[in-house]
Amino acid sequence: MLEIDTRPVVLDQYTIDETGRSGRRPRGVVYPSGVEDVVSVVEWARENGTPIIARGAGTSLEGHLLARGDELIVDLSQANTILGIAPEDFTATVQPGVTRTQLNAAAAEYGLQFTVDPGADASLGGMAATNASGTTTVRYGGMRANVLALQAVFADGTVSRLGRAVRKSSSGYDLKDLLIGSAGTLGLITELTVRLHPIPEWIHSLRISFPTVAEAVDTAVEMLGLALPVSRLELVDAPSMAAINAFRGTAYAESPALFVDIESSSAAAVTANEQEIQRIAHAHNAIDVTTARTHGDRHALWEDRHNLYFAVKAANPGRQFLITDTAVPYSRIAAAVDTATRLGTELGLNITVAGHIGDGNVHTIVPYNEDEYAGAQVFSDLVVRHALEVGGTATGEHGIGLTKKKYLREEHGSGVDLMLAVKRALDPFGLFNPGKVLDVESEDADPSYS
Amino acid sequence: MLEIDTRPVVLDQYTIDETGRSGRRPRGVVYPSGVEDVVSVVEWARENGTPIIARGAGTSLEGHLLARGDELIVDLSQANTILGIAPEDFTATVQPGVTRTQLNAAAAEYGLQFTVDPGADASLGGMAATNASGTTTVRYGGMRANVLALQAVFADGTVSRLGRAVRKSSSGYDLKDLLIGSAGTLGLITELTVRLHPIPEWIHSLRISFPTVAEAVDTAVEMLGLALPVSRLELVDAPSMAAINAFRGTAYAESPALFVDIESSSAAAVTANEQEIQRIAHAHNAIDVTTARTHGDRHALWEDRHNLYFAVKAANPGRQFLITDTAVPYSRIAAAVDTATRLGTELGLNITVAGHIGDGNVHTIVPYNEDEYAGAQVFSDLVVRHALEVGGTATGEHGIGLTKKKYLREEHGSGVDLMLAVKRALDPFGLFNPGKVLDVESEDADPSYS
Repeated sequence: MLEIDTRPVVLDQYTIDETGRSGRRPRGVVYPSGVEDVVSVVEWARENGTPIIARGAGTSLEGHLLARGDELIVDLSQANTILGIAPEDFTATVQPGVTRTQLNAAAAEYGLQFTVDPGADASLGGMAATNASGTTTVRYGGMRANVLALQAVFADGTVSRLGRAVRKSSSGYDLKDLLIGSAGTLGLITELTVRLHPIPEWIHSLRISFPTVAEAVDTAVEMLGLALPVSRLELVDAPSMAAINAFRGTAYAESPALFVDIESSSAAAVTANEQEIQRIAHAHNAIDVTTARTHGDRHALWEDRHNLYFAVKAANPGRQFLITDTAVPYSRIAAAVDTATRLGTELGLNITVAGHIGDGNVHTIVPYNEDEYAGAQVFSDLVVRHALEVGGTATGEHGIGLTKKKYLREEHGSGVDLMLAVKRALDPFGLFNPGKVLDVESEDADPSYS
Repeated sequence: MLEIDTRPVVLDQYTIDETGRSGRRPRGVVYPSGVEDVVSVVEWARENGTPIIARGAGTSLEGHLLARGDELIVDLSQANTILGIAPEDFTATVQPGVTRTQLNAAAAEYGLQFTVDPGADASLGGMAATNASGTTTVRYGGMRANVLALQAVFADGTVSRLGRAVRKSSSGYDLKDLLIGSAGTLGLITELTVRLHPIPEWIHSLRISFPTVAEAVDTAVEMLGLALPVSRLELVDAPSMAAINAFRGTAYAESPALFVDIESSSAAAVTANEQEIQRIAHAHNAIDVTTARTHGDRHALWEDRHNLYFAVKAANPGRQFLITDTAVPYSRIAAAVDTATRLGTELGLNITVAGHIGDGNVHTIVPYNEDEYAGAQVFSDLVVRHALEVGGTATGEHGIGLTKKKYLREEHGSGVDLMLAVKRALDPFGLFNPGKVLDVESEDADPSYS
């Protein structure tokens, strides 16, 4: 067994997550460097009746990584070796602590990229554990579409390989996708084989302003309906654009806007596609269309979008931030945004909306101070309930963790009982991240994260 | 409970599958028309200790539908109502007996299509149960990528909804993908919500002949490496082209050929992309490039490929046919084809190779008579073992059923124990399609399907 770090100053670093939520001080921290270490940790945990919480870059937004009792933290950030890149197969095999930017730097040498891009520089193990996605999901899919195979350690210490490093298989049960999104509650991921995609030669980026959210959404859905090869399709609302102007010193229209990437494999194709987007946008009363056609211009255009969170932070000094993460069917996107805007106003919150609307995934950033905390919680709750009512999901890409457990039965009904049966079957000793995703003993929400 | 049809003449129709394999005469057949019927069947089956085999169009190639004991056949072909199409969400909700051509006819009214296209006009429930795919998987994915949500009936009679009809979710365990590919061994699918895709306005089709398989494969992989928007990417070998010539009275080069579709959202784009494909093909010594740019020409070009099975049948009168279904990494495709060709020659079998090589999925059609049966089985076994050795899978799209069970542990190792734990957890009474995919009592292969 690895040495367990129990220094209080170290343990305290693991009691707070990205959102400022706090958990208990864990029993200790170990730093495995490979699968053999993880096996020894799982065996030690089973023998000592100590549950374990796997952790990568620590960028969860839903409390996945917080200790609730006497857990041992398994910090996999040092298991960060790129084990191999097979450019001819468009795959890479990595340890779970490898981050997406680390993999992208290595893949770029072969003209390839790993496309899943959550905001943070997350680890691939953590991204698999939460089924992360990001801005390119509309074209390339999220983690389930991009992880071909996993190696994981299970409760009895067995190391299993789930899935095969091929594009398709109908062999046996799909345990690879069961592990993805299970938030370390079924087993510990120790290796991933992921898809890489060619870096496109021709990309044009557009920022398009509209009078209303509905017109922006209609434009986006029409692009999808015409099968235009968009690889990013993002909506930001008017308050977001105002925050960007204030933060970046720009003077963009403070109206709802789409940020779009269109990729093609020839100059003629990308130009034709861009013209088609311009036509659709103007048919939906676009106020302004800005196109970026060079690498530098594209980088500048997207920097505004990538800085949105910092812009909102700067506009709300001294506050903390809650980020909602619902996804809804396309026909419900505009209503979801309008509902969030209305609720923000009613609750006196200075919210902004930004969504991966190519996937129907709507985020709101909710700034709050101590006085606004209760209102922010009410806001988040009403936004989730609205999404569930229209057939959507409580979480498009951040995961359930601790904070969304209370919606699990509303979203999945008796499917939760099947999830519990699977959890009991694969983690009979309750070793893996207890109380995250599911409560095995009681499905009531933990009142401390209501 | 529904009336059970026990007429011998009816039951005998359920003892033979598409490949000519035979099972026992089942206990009876029921014909549910909806979920309530299925619940009553599952409850009856549990109370009577009679296992059940769900069946759609009956086009399984791997023995999924054959009774081995006293099973009741649940024939869902009459549960074939399209429950709704939501064109604005690009989705359709259907009963499991709806076939893919039935759904496509309805979706076409909205300019939409359901893209998954196995050779047969299979039912969507059956296609989900085997994780079917087909020629368009290279662009649109197979059933896992195209089924957003399922309704299913489980062992205790509970009806659960798995997944949500949105593009992405990180909520709870991915039970939807666990059911897909489980071949009716975990629960019975009673409803599916699937993705529809816009019918592209611009498609060019190409048939390109090459001196060697390796040059055809290199061309295909280079197209993928340049991110050309191919939506079909099929390889047929020289003996296949000879069979097509004999069957159709054509005079194509009897050399390995690619059949390619390229889709774009503008005329300029599709023309640019086609020129790029021509350039790559000629750089790899293409003998002949034929392009079809109109609907009629495209239909004619693809009819040759779609008639391949019939052409092979006509060339091998009086024989039955075994079809292998391995998938391998791209870098192993050419060797997989060469290995199959060599083994066919060594074993005196008149095999042909055709593959969805955009996915690394290589099929061989193996004609056999009584004398050749043993050789055909040896051939199939060696082809699978070669695929597994190079990191591939025993089945890209047909499923495990009865015939591929013997490879499950070779492919998944200790993952099979996890599959067994899941099977026991979700089907504790052993009600659902016993002996398919997994043997719960013994993992030895059934000697009668060796």
